[in-house]
Amino acid sequence: MAAICYQSSFKLLSTSPSTNLSKPNFSLSTTFRCNLSAPSLKPLIAEPDPVFTSVKSFAPATVANLGPGFDFLGCAVDGIGDYVTLRADPDVHPGEISISDISGVGSCSKKLSKNPLWNCAGIAAISVMKMLNIRSVGLSLSLEKGLPLGSGLGSSAASAAAAAVAVNEIFGGPLSVSDLVLAGLESESKVSGYHADNVAPSLMGGFVLIRSYDPLDMIQLKFPPEKELFFVLVTPEFEAPTKKMRAVLPSEITMADHGWNSTQAAALVVSIVLGDSRGLGKALSSDKIVEPRRAPLIPGFVGVKKAAIEAGAYGCTISGAGPTAVAIIDDEERGREIGERMVEAFMKDGNLKASAMVQRLDRVGARLVSSISR
Amino acid sequence: MAAICYQSSFKLLSTSPSTNLSKPNFSLSTTFRCNLSAPSLKPLIAEPDPVFTSVKSFAPATVANLGPGFDFLGCAVDGIGDYVTLRADPDVHPGEISISDISGVGSCSKKLSKNPLWNCAGIAAISVMKMLNIRSVGLSLSLEKGLPLGSGLGSSAASAAAAAVAVNEIFGGPLSVSDLVLAGLESESKVSGYHADNVAPSLMGGFVLIRSYDPLDMIQLKFPPEKELFFVLVTPEFEAPTKKMRAVLPSEITMADHGWNSTQAAALVVSIVLGDSRGLGKALSSDKIVEPRRAPLIPGFVGVKKAAIEAGAYGCTISGAGPTAVAIIDDEERGREIGERMVEAFMKDGNLKASAMVQRLDRVGARLVSSISR
Repeated sequence: MAAICYQSSFKLLSTSPSTNLSKPNFSLSTTFRCNLSAPSLKPLIAEPDPVFTSVKSFAPATVANLGPGFDFLGCAVDGIGDYVTLRADPDVHPGEISISDISGVGSCSKKLSKNPLWNCAGIAAISVMKMLNIRSVGLSLSLEKGLPLGSGLGSSAASAAAAAVAVNEIFGGPLSVSDLVLAGLESESKVSGYHADNVAPSLMGGFVLIRSYDPLDMIQLKFPPEKELFFVLVTPEFEAPTKKMRAVLPSEITMADHGWNSTQAAALVVSIVLGDSRGLGKALSSDKIVEPRRAPLIPGFVGVKKAAIEAGAYGCTISGAGPTAVAIIDDEERGREIGERMVEAFMKDGNLKASAMVQRLDRVGARLVSSISR
Repeated sequence: MAAICYQSSFKLLSTSPSTNLSKPNFSLSTTFRCNLSAPSLKPLIAEPDPVFTSVKSFAPATVANLGPGFDFLGCAVDGIGDYVTLRADPDVHPGEISISDISGVGSCSKKLSKNPLWNCAGIAAISVMKMLNIRSVGLSLSLEKGLPLGSGLGSSAASAAAAAVAVNEIFGGPLSVSDLVLAGLESESKVSGYHADNVAPSLMGGFVLIRSYDPLDMIQLKFPPEKELFFVLVTPEFEAPTKKMRAVLPSEITMADHGWNSTQAAALVVSIVLGDSRGLGKALSSDKIVEPRRAPLIPGFVGVKKAAIEAGAYGCTISGAGPTAVAIIDDEERGREIGERMVEAFMKDGNLKASAMVQRLDRVGARLVSSISR
């Protein structure tokens, strides 16, 4: 391995600013652009040395779709997510990665493959290793799932984001967050579909608007830091029929519904930037296209939404493709009460047990939580 | 007429803040709500006295639709618009209004009716008089058109807005801007269709998002005051076939086009609030639903848009229902060059003479320009 000062080399080669994930310094909004067909990072003449012996990263859960924000808007939720521990491992073939352990909630460890090529964390890690041209170091990855699979909280995206950050950080963090989104997107496209509305907010924090995919063009929307925003997340014990959730979407819609939904989409993002949580909730609740078609597939959802609004939530919709229901409020205590009413409604109207949690908006995104220097 | 202090009475009766059109004091965005079926102003026990013998008001031109902002977004353009001169006239039957004169550009004076019931300024004026319960004073209105009819620059809305402001101001300005929008909307619905995306920005200034109609719910979007925004408006000598412009719109669209356009609508309004004129232009240019269907009805438009972009415009689309083409830029001198290229393209590709102007964003809206005290 060439012992050149690779960090300087990387900075020259990368067109975007360094990630600096642990101390984000974005303004009110930040625009990220990169060309998918030509990665922003050109082939490296020298691969980086690892800076740490091991690192541990965290990536938050995400709520995608957000009513009229279907398929282009997502946000990160603090306090829940996935952890990845990564170490340079002389027992692993140089340039390769091995998944040593998968643990965590529910039956994740049984359902997820330890083959890195078939694991969302593994795919994202390999993608970042390719960007960094890693050939001399083998890596060992341990995945700790804090998110249940198929809950509508961006479980696969959180694993991918945590892995991408871990690989980048163990080599000193030379890649930009846009590069990491590309790696995460590669993982998502193989596991859950070609969409960045979970993995981008999991990596970047806050709300992220995916403006286009070719080139990948994202706008990070900052909810004003002086204002509070809480998500009441209520997950029933029910496996959402993912294929049906997709199949129930129409191929064509009326111009009237388009006009309504795009108006509410505009109101939604304006409310985010202006920190208007009531306006945000109202827009979130107003989807006439996706939610009305998916709601009947989640037993009790209609009653749960009604209960949330009656209990004072500013808005409520399906998180991702469900079955988690998400409600919006700016007060944590009120959020707990709303959660209780929603849990009751899932039982009463859907005959489903459910659990509620109240979490803050995550404004940071995936980050390094600990590291051991060489 | 009761000689009570009517201004205080009005303030008690009105649920929204006083208009204060000449000195707007809105924050980054302001939300206006009123219930169309139940006017916000309750019946008055006493009608107001006129404060002025005569007033002159101005209301700016507007650009509606704005690409993916179709039917819900419009903005005001400084420097061009309509004037209304209004005076208390003892020769007019008390409680009624007479249109004494219509003058201005093109053939306006011949095409517009002097019957207040069939004139957009007259209808708006009568609506405001009803809100104020005017029974003891007759009014005489003179309309000076600065905007050609059917150009796509909100000509009818500017007349309605100027008239609504004039009637309100001659009686001391007791009504809120939301009330005036309701009056303007009544006029628009009789003249050009039930939409507020011209009359609301003409009255309020800046960009206005019409979130819903029942109740009327508007969000005023402030383009940051420290940043410049110019509109290059190029109007060909061509009458846009209004009926065809409406008829060419589809009743159904694909889910893919909906997703794209609502994403761009969201990017458009975020760009406005953040003062990102490049992002605004890009979103403005990206409509896949309305512009592609209407463009073929305006000879040369496709070439005009291409010429605008090549000359450095950040974006270009059809203003309202056309035929005016609108391009976006943040530099006035560059705007003039863009306008020249667009005029050339209208001739080359559409065989149409055209005229260009470069105007700033109007941030104030309709206002009193002069008054004569009693």
